[in-house]
Amino acid sequence: MTFKASILTLYPDMFPGPLGQSLSGRALNNGLWELEARQIRDSATDKHRSVDDTPSGGGAGMVLRADIIGKAIDAAAPSDDPRPRILMSPRGKPFTQAKAHELAEGPGAIIVCGRFEGVDQRVIDGRNLEEVSIGDYILSGGEIGAITLLDAIVRLIPGVMGNMESADTESFEAGLLEHPQYTRPAEFEGRTIPGVLTSGNHKKIAEWQLEQAERLTEARRPDLWARYLKG
Amino acid sequence: MTFKASILTLYPDMFPGPLGQSLSGRALNNGLWELEARQIRDSATDKHRSVDDTPSGGGAGMVLRADIIGKAIDAAAPSDDPRPRILMSPRGKPFTQAKAHELAEGPGAIIVCGRFEGVDQRVIDGRNLEEVSIGDYILSGGEIGAITLLDAIVRLIPGVMGNMESADTESFEAGLLEHPQYTRPAEFEGRTIPGVLTSGNHKKIAEWQLEQAERLTEARRPDLWARYLKG
Repeated sequence: MTFKASILTLYPDMFPGPLGQSLSGRALNNGLWELEARQIRDSATDKHRSVDDTPSGGGAGMVLRADIIGKAIDAAAPSDDPRPRILMSPRGKPFTQAKAHELAEGPGAIIVCGRFEGVDQRVIDGRNLEEVSIGDYILSGGEIGAITLLDAIVRLIPGVMGNMESADTESFEAGLLEHPQYTRPAEFEGRTIPGVLTSGNHKKIAEWQLEQAERLTEARRPDLWARYLKG
Repeated sequence: MTFKASILTLYPDMFPGPLGQSLSGRALNNGLWELEARQIRDSATDKHRSVDDTPSGGGAGMVLRADIIGKAIDAAAPSDDPRPRILMSPRGKPFTQAKAHELAEGPGAIIVCGRFEGVDQRVIDGRNLEEVSIGDYILSGGEIGAITLLDAIVRLIPGVMGNMESADTESFEAGLLEHPQYTRPAEFEGRTIPGVLTSGNHKKIAEWQLEQAERLTEARRPDLWARYLKG
C-alpha cells in the first residue's frame, strides 16, 4: 500500500511545490508516495463558487463553511477511507517527529488547509478532523503547514532515504538536539576541528558527541532536557 | 525600506514556490517585500561544484563545508548588511509569533538552508548565524522551514493584509488558542450554531469567546496556559 496524501485547498497550484523537488520529489516520481491536491471551490454550490461567510457573532475575516468543507471531504474520501483526517490549524496539537513516524507507517492522510479566520467548528466535529499545528505562529493558510507535514513524513517512508541521508542520529530521534558537526577543511578562518574528532578513538568521539548534544539541549531547550532526564 | 529576504540554498527553484501565490505572492508582486534565492553551489571552488564533505569523527551523511557557506554568505551580504543571519535548523530556537513580528519590523533576513547532516559549526560561529527551528521534527532541508518563516513574517509587513484578513484576534496574539468559529448555514447535519453567537449581545459574545479560548488552551496546551496565567 502506497502512502497517499489528499490535500483540500483553495490553492491547489501550491502543490507539489517544494515537495516536487529533492528527496520528496524523487520519491514522488518513483511512486513511493502519492499526492493529490483538490480544489475546495469544486464543492461550492452557487455560481460564485463561494466557500466562506462572515463569522457568527461578528468580527473580522471570513470562516470556511461547514457544508462546503464537508462536501469536499466526502468527495475526497468515502466514510470508510482509513486515512486520518487532519486539519492544519494553529489551535492543533503540536506536530512532532513521533507523529511523523506514526503517519509515515499509515495509509496516508486527508489534509484540510484552513484559510482566513478558520473553519466552521461543526465540520471539525462532524467529520472528526484532527487539528495539527506545525508551530506557534500564524501562517496565511494551511498549505505551507501541509507541505511541512508531508516533507517530514515522506522522508521516513521506507525506501525514500538512501545512503546519502540518515535518520538515526538526528535531532529529536534520541530526545536530544544534535551535536555540532565539522568537516574538511581542517582550518577555517583560524578555527580548527576539535581534536577528539580527528583522534580516531571511536569511544571518545561518541562520548564527546553525546556530551555536546546534552549540553546544547540543556542550554537551548529546557523543555526537551527535562523530558530526556525523566527517560 | 523594503523587507528583503536572501535565501542560500541548493534548491533555488523551490522559491518562491508557495510564497509566489495568495497573500505573500500578491505582496511580492506589489513590491511590499523582495525575495532572492541564491545557489550555494555558485560559491564552490572545484570543478565538481562540491559543497559538502564527510563528517569529522565519522558517521552517516554529509556536512556542508564552512568555507563554501562562508563564501556564499559573504557574496549575498557585505559584513555591514544589517539583516539578521538565520540558519534554519532543528537545533535552533523555536520560531514564534513574537519572533515573526520582530523580523517583520526589520530590514529582512539572510536565511541559510541546511541540508544533509547540517552545517560545519565553525561557519555558524564565524558568521554569527542565529539557528531557528520551526518545530520539533526533521525536514529534508531548510528550504521548507524558510518558506514557513517567511510566510509568517510577510503577512505582518504593513500593507500586506487587507480588509479580508485580520491579525489581532488570532491564536497566539493574545497568548491563547483561538475560540471556535461558526458561520452560515444555521444548521449543518443537525448541528446548530451556539445561541449566544446569534443573540446580538456583544458583551455576552465576547465573554463566551474568551471562555472558549481559555478552555481550549487549558485542555490542549498546558504550556501556553501556564504562561497565560502568569500574565
